[in-house]
Amino acid sequence: MDQIIKGSQSLAFVNAPYLVSAASVTGSKEAEGPLGKLFDMTSEDDLFGAQTWEEAESTMQKESCVLALGKAHVGAEEVRYLFGGDLLRQGIATSMGVEALQIPLFGLYGACSTSGEALALAAMSAAAGYGEYMLAVTSSHFGSAEKEFRFPLGYASQRPLSAHWTVTGSGAFLVRSAVTETQNSAEDVSRLSQGDTGEGREQEGRRKSHIRIAGVTVGKIVDYGLKDSQNMGACMAPAAMDTIVQNFKDMGRTEQDYDRIITGDLGYVGQSILFDLVRGKGYDIREKHLDCGMTIFDQQTQDTHAGGSGCGCAAVTLASFVLPKIEKGEWKRVLFVPTGALMSTVSYNEGASVPGIAHGIVLEHC
Amino acid sequence: MDQIIKGSQSLAFVNAPYLVSAASVTGSKEAEGPLGKLFDMTSEDDLFGAQTWEEAESTMQKESCVLALGKAHVGAEEVRYLFGGDLLRQGIATSMGVEALQIPLFGLYGACSTSGEALALAAMSAAAGYGEYMLAVTSSHFGSAEKEFRFPLGYASQRPLSAHWTVTGSGAFLVRSAVTETQNSAEDVSRLSQGDTGEGREQEGRRKSHIRIAGVTVGKIVDYGLKDSQNMGACMAPAAMDTIVQNFKDMGRTEQDYDRIITGDLGYVGQSILFDLVRGKGYDIREKHLDCGMTIFDQQTQDTHAGGSGCGCAAVTLASFVLPKIEKGEWKRVLFVPTGALMSTVSYNEGASVPGIAHGIVLEHC
Repeated sequence: MDQIIKGSQSLAFVNAPYLVSAASVTGSKEAEGPLGKLFDMTSEDDLFGAQTWEEAESTMQKESCVLALGKAHVGAEEVRYLFGGDLLRQGIATSMGVEALQIPLFGLYGACSTSGEALALAAMSAAAGYGEYMLAVTSSHFGSAEKEFRFPLGYASQRPLSAHWTVTGSGAFLVRSAVTETQNSAEDVSRLSQGDTGEGREQEGRRKSHIRIAGVTVGKIVDYGLKDSQNMGACMAPAAMDTIVQNFKDMGRTEQDYDRIITGDLGYVGQSILFDLVRGKGYDIREKHLDCGMTIFDQQTQDTHAGGSGCGCAAVTLASFVLPKIEKGEWKRVLFVPTGALMSTVSYNEGASVPGIAHGIVLEHC
Repeated sequence: MDQIIKGSQSLAFVNAPYLVSAASVTGSKEAEGPLGKLFDMTSEDDLFGAQTWEEAESTMQKESCVLALGKAHVGAEEVRYLFGGDLLRQGIATSMGVEALQIPLFGLYGACSTSGEALALAAMSAAAGYGEYMLAVTSSHFGSAEKEFRFPLGYASQRPLSAHWTVTGSGAFLVRSAVTETQNSAEDVSRLSQGDTGEGREQEGRRKSHIRIAGVTVGKIVDYGLKDSQNMGACMAPAAMDTIVQNFKDMGRTEQDYDRIITGDLGYVGQSILFDLVRGKGYDIREKHLDCGMTIFDQQTQDTHAGGSGCGCAAVTLASFVLPKIEKGEWKRVLFVPTGALMSTVSYNEGASVPGIAHGIVLEHC
C-alpha cells in the first residue's frame, strides 16, 4: 500500500504489469518520415500483398501481433486475452486480422484513443492476475480510413489545413502479469494442475522488460460542441486536457513528475488548444509535451497538414520511438494519452457534434 | 481456492461480483411480443422523441442506464467504469447515448455478442476491486441497423426466411464488487482518505442482489467460411458451440450443471445447427437451451422470420425475462452466451466470410 489514488478515474496497480515487447508495422509514407528507420516492418505499396485496403489493414494487425509475440518468444496460445480495435465500421480490420491467432478476443472502439483503451484493459487484466500474457493491438490505414470517413480519393478533394493524414500502421503490445498465483482475482490453476507450483517462475521462464504499466486514467467523453470533423485536433484537445488534469489530480502529480506527456494525434491545431486549456487549469505542459501525430511525419516535406492520426499513429510511435527510450531509462516516467474523436459519417451528417475521449497510461522505467 | 479452472479461456471469480440491477427499454414491436409486459420502458413510435433512428438508439441507451442506476439507488458518479457498445459504425449510439452520464468509458464492439463482452469486462473489473460499481450497456435499433447493414426500407426488399429482425432495445446492467478493500488489485483509497475504513460497509450501505456473475468464458473468433450475411444464425452457431463446449471443459461441467443455456440471437436456423454441432462434441443441450431471438418475438404472428437479433436482443431478454428467474431462485445457474456475426457492408461486399464470436457469462443465484 505505497500509493494513494484519490478521485474516481485512475488506478495504480499494486502489481504493475510489464510491457514486455512491442512491434510496429507501417506503410510507405510513414517509412519515409522521421521515424522510418525505427519501424519493424514497412510495405512499399501499402497493400501488404492484399487486394483491398481493409485486407491490408488486417494484414498489418496480424503481422504486428506476430512480431510482438516473436520478440518475446511467446506463442499466441500463451496469450490469455487479446484487446484490439481499429477505425473501420464494425471493427473488421481487427476481426479479420487477428482471427488466425485464435486468442480469446475483446473487440474495442475508442476511435484514435483505442491504443490507450486496449493497453488499459490489457494492464487491468494482467494486474488482476487473469492470465500471464495479454496482447493489445490497434491499426489504421490511410486508404481504408479515407474510404470510411471522407471522399473517394479519385475526387481529388482539397483538404483543409486543419485536417490530419491517417497513418497506415499497426502497433501491438505484449503485457505480462507480475501477479503471483496466490494473489489472483480469479482461479487459474491450469499450471498448478500440471505440477508447476509457480515457484521459481520469476527466475526461470518469464520474460521481463524495464517497462511497467504503473497505472491508468480512463477517460470520459468530453464534448465542447464542435462539429468540424475536418478539425479533429480541436475536437479532441478538451478530452486530452481532461484526462491529463484528472491524472495529475488522481495521482497527486504535476507535469514535473513526468519526463514526457505524449498525446496521440492532436496535431498542430490541437496542441496549441491543449496548451491553452491545460494552462487554464493551472498547469504548463509545454516543456514536456510530445504529440505522436506531429512526430511521425515531417509536416514541411510530407504535406500532412495538421499531422498524423488514426489508431495506428499513437500505437506505432509508442512502439518504435517512445518505448525504447523508457526501456533504456532515458525517460523514467511517461504519461501516454491517445485521443479519439467520436463520430461517424452518419453522426456528423445528421448534425451531431464530435466529442472526444482520451485514455491515460502511466509507463515507468524499472 | 475452491474452484479450479483448467484451460485457457475462462475465469471463475474468487470474489464473484453481484449483478445488482438491470433495465430494459424497447420499441413498439417488442412491446407487442411475448415479453412485452416485462420491459421497463417502451416507445410507441420507436423514435423516443428524437429526430433520427441513431439518436433514438442513443436515447434508449441513456434511459436504460438511468433506469438500472435508479433501481439500485446508485448515482452515475458512483460508477467507476462504463462498458458499452452497439452495432453502428464507430459505435455512435453508445458515444452519443452515454455522454451525459459522464462515467469513464470503455467503448466495445462485439456485434450481437457485445452484451456478453460488456458484462465480462464489468465483472472482471469489479472482481479485481477496480471500483465498487461498473455499468454494462448495449443497444440495437431496427431502423438504424437496416440503414447500417441492409437496404433502405423504402425499397421494400424481400427478406429471406433465414434473416433476422433487429430488436429495437437497450439493456443496462449494474455490477457491484464483492471485493473488500484489502484484496484490491489496484489502490483506491479515496474512501480511506475520507475517514471510511471500509469496515461495516457490507452491512450498511452496499446494495445486494441474489445474482452473482460467477465466471466468464471469453470467446475466440470462429470462422466456418460462411458468406451469407442474411443467414447470421448459421454464421454464429459455430462460435456458440465453441464457447459453450469450452465453458464445459474449462469448468468441468456438462449441460446438467446449468438450468438454462441461453444464446443471444441464433434464431430457428442457428439453433438447429447449434444442437448438431454440440452433439458432435458429445453433449446434448436441447433440453436446456433457450434463444433470446426466439423468445422475444412470436414468429407466427410477428413475421420476424429466423427471430430477433442485435446487441439489444440478448440484453433486454436477459434484463426482463432471465434475471428475475435467477433472482427468485427458479433458475440456480445459467450460462448466458450472446453471439455476434463479425462483418460490415464493406467486408461482405469485398467477399470476406462472416466469422462469429460468442462470450459466456455464468450467472448464479445466491
